[in-house]
Amino acid sequence: MDEKDAAVPEGWTQQKRPLAWNKRFEFADYAQTRAFLDDLAALSEASGYYPNLNFARTHVVVTIQFEGDEVEPRLRDFAHSTDACARRGPG
Amino acid sequence: MDEKDAAVPEGWTQQKRPLAWNKRFEFADYAQTRAFLDDLAALSEASGYYPNLNFARTHVVVTIQFEGDEVEPRLRDFAHSTDACARRGPG
Repeated sequence: MDEKDAAVPEGWTQQKRPLAWNKRFEFADYAQTRAFLDDLAALSEASGYYPNLNFARTHVVVTIQFEGDEVEPRLRDFAHSTDACARRGPG
Repeated sequence: MDEKDAAVPEGWTQQKRPLAWNKRFEFADYAQTRAFLDDLAALSEASGYYPNLNFARTHVVVTIQFEGDEVEPRLRDFAHSTDACARRGPG
């Protein structure tokens, strides 16, 4: 994987040992938070990958943890799809 | 509130400053985790209280944080209702 692909996507912070990407998403109200969580649930069921999600009424922190020290394409794609869900906003 | 009411419910651990109760719930599969999360969402919408929820495929950690150092009855009731949701299991 070339460097560009392994780079941390915009807005995500990287943590090492174990390698993980974190991002906090803020929402105007609980309905939007739920819509985002429902989108991520569909993403997880489609991809078979379940990130750690930490949420309350108006925020969700997504943590994508990699197996080793390598950025797995499948999980990098999950991060990009997560961003797309957030951009799309409530249905 | 008498002592019994302020006691930490069974299975919950207490943290101080700020006062909070935590409990980890384990599930056999994602469907059961989702059913529990949906029950808690309904509980939050009915009570207007939104705990911090940290979950992945088969576990949910519920954190109930109190405003001051006093166990608020409304939040203690939320903890008991959370246990009831877990006991009930999937619909």
